[in-house]
Amino acid sequence: MSQDDKPKTPRDSHYARLRRAHRDIKAGPRPPTRRQQTVEAGEAPPDGLVRLYGLHTVRAALDNPLRKIRRMWVTRNAAERLGLGELDALPFPVESVEPKAIDRLTGSDAVHQGALVEAEPLKPKRLDALGDTPLVIVLDQVTDPHNVGAIVRSAVAFGAGALITTSRHSPAESGVLAKSASGALEHLDLIEVRNLADALLQLHDAGFQTIGLDSDGPSELEDSFAGGRIALVLGAEGKGLRQKTRDTVTRLARLDMPGPIRSLNVSNAAAVALYGARRHLAANR
Amino acid sequence: MSQDDKPKTPRDSHYARLRRAHRDIKAGPRPPTRRQQTVEAGEAPPDGLVRLYGLHTVRAALDNPLRKIRRMWVTRNAAERLGLGELDALPFPVESVEPKAIDRLTGSDAVHQGALVEAEPLKPKRLDALGDTPLVIVLDQVTDPHNVGAIVRSAVAFGAGALITTSRHSPAESGVLAKSASGALEHLDLIEVRNLADALLQLHDAGFQTIGLDSDGPSELEDSFAGGRIALVLGAEGKGLRQKTRDTVTRLARLDMPGPIRSLNVSNAAAVALYGARRHLAANR
Repeated sequence: MSQDDKPKTPRDSHYARLRRAHRDIKAGPRPPTRRQQTVEAGEAPPDGLVRLYGLHTVRAALDNPLRKIRRMWVTRNAAERLGLGELDALPFPVESVEPKAIDRLTGSDAVHQGALVEAEPLKPKRLDALGDTPLVIVLDQVTDPHNVGAIVRSAVAFGAGALITTSRHSPAESGVLAKSASGALEHLDLIEVRNLADALLQLHDAGFQTIGLDSDGPSELEDSFAGGRIALVLGAEGKGLRQKTRDTVTRLARLDMPGPIRSLNVSNAAAVALYGARRHLAANR
Repeated sequence: MSQDDKPKTPRDSHYARLRRAHRDIKAGPRPPTRRQQTVEAGEAPPDGLVRLYGLHTVRAALDNPLRKIRRMWVTRNAAERLGLGELDALPFPVESVEPKAIDRLTGSDAVHQGALVEAEPLKPKRLDALGDTPLVIVLDQVTDPHNVGAIVRSAVAFGAGALITTSRHSPAESGVLAKSASGALEHLDLIEVRNLADALLQLHDAGFQTIGLDSDGPSELEDSFAGGRIALVLGAEGKGLRQKTRDTVTRLARLDMPGPIRSLNVSNAAAVALYGARRHLAANR
């Protein structure tokens, strides 16, 4: 994990508090509402389970037949918005609770919107299991859960079928990653490989053009696409792609950036590359 | 601020800890290093100052003649990497410190890389001060500092000259925003307006095509660009553009997303739109 990838979170909540305070002052006196109390996140979920929260994320988990849900906490309002119907009829224990009961699990800064499930993490697949998708994303040691979550969301939006990571230095599934993915995690194959260079060769055999994003790449991204299957390969911010990865991809491509800053947040770079790849694939169908 | 925009931070550090623990187990016993202690962020900086940290961010602040720096804390290593030379020769007080002295200001989860300055916030400009830039970003109540920081970074990378926000519901400048912008905050005019619809009309008078991003927009983004000046208008996730904004922009445009998830993280949407606008402007110069 590069330095840039580390979550920098006490600072965030610190500034969030300052910002809220500042906004409250600008906005004048607040209407009386239930008193807000800051609650720190509680204990980790048991047995390697992940906690998924937020309406989109929980909805998508409920709709995913491969997602094994063990338990649910939900407010009356969220149960209605999720259209859950009779809670006793659900195939796992459900507790109808007040929002602050969920706060006590997630911490009060998590935007759980009154819905939380404890579930088994999705089982990563092997590369052999890759279907006939024309577009995949490959991450070379990108681990920050906000970035990976946003990448998963963009990948699914632009029709990518899989996210390929190494089993080491891969992003562990977590509530933050799932929330950042906004439900998209349930719509994509997660594939873990031991050796990324071997995986790239396997993708070549399967007809993929593998495009490594690199700010010093010899060709512009749009000119780099060819063929009917594209794998976009992204490295961590700061570190970029590892040498072995750079040596193995079909092409290294750059995004042309005319401004004084010449690198993007990795999820932003992924979104642009996915958009470009999707346009290429649509035009060459 | 929409629900999706709220920082969800105790959760992050919680998962960061879990992830680190998991990785440590996978990686085997750790080589002996200095003992890591978690430190919470200290008091806010005095007098409405902002704390800027991280090598890129501090370097860019030092290079910006408009940035008034009041004080600096820096490790020997960071001073060298920043090429600061004789610390006493700098036009503000500098303290040469150990990393943990900076931890005590930012909290130990902030990636300060041994460099921190306390500085005055950049003074927002008025719309009249907009120069001859062909590309600007307009934010309709997007406030999350990670997203706004990433948008600033992409905006500068793709050559946008200004970020226009309302004075209310605008993102307050902060260490998190500046760090997410990775130095880009110093390369862009920050413009605050009272009324966004009035500002859009003023942009039209100045020859801008204003393009509002909207998932239900009638035309595809690439087909929406026209003319030599483009203003991209983005709303907060979940809420989108306000009705008045939707009614005022030249066009509402969508990004075509063939997948089952039909919205992007706002900074990812901004990056794609900036990329598209830059391509249009380069082709129509």
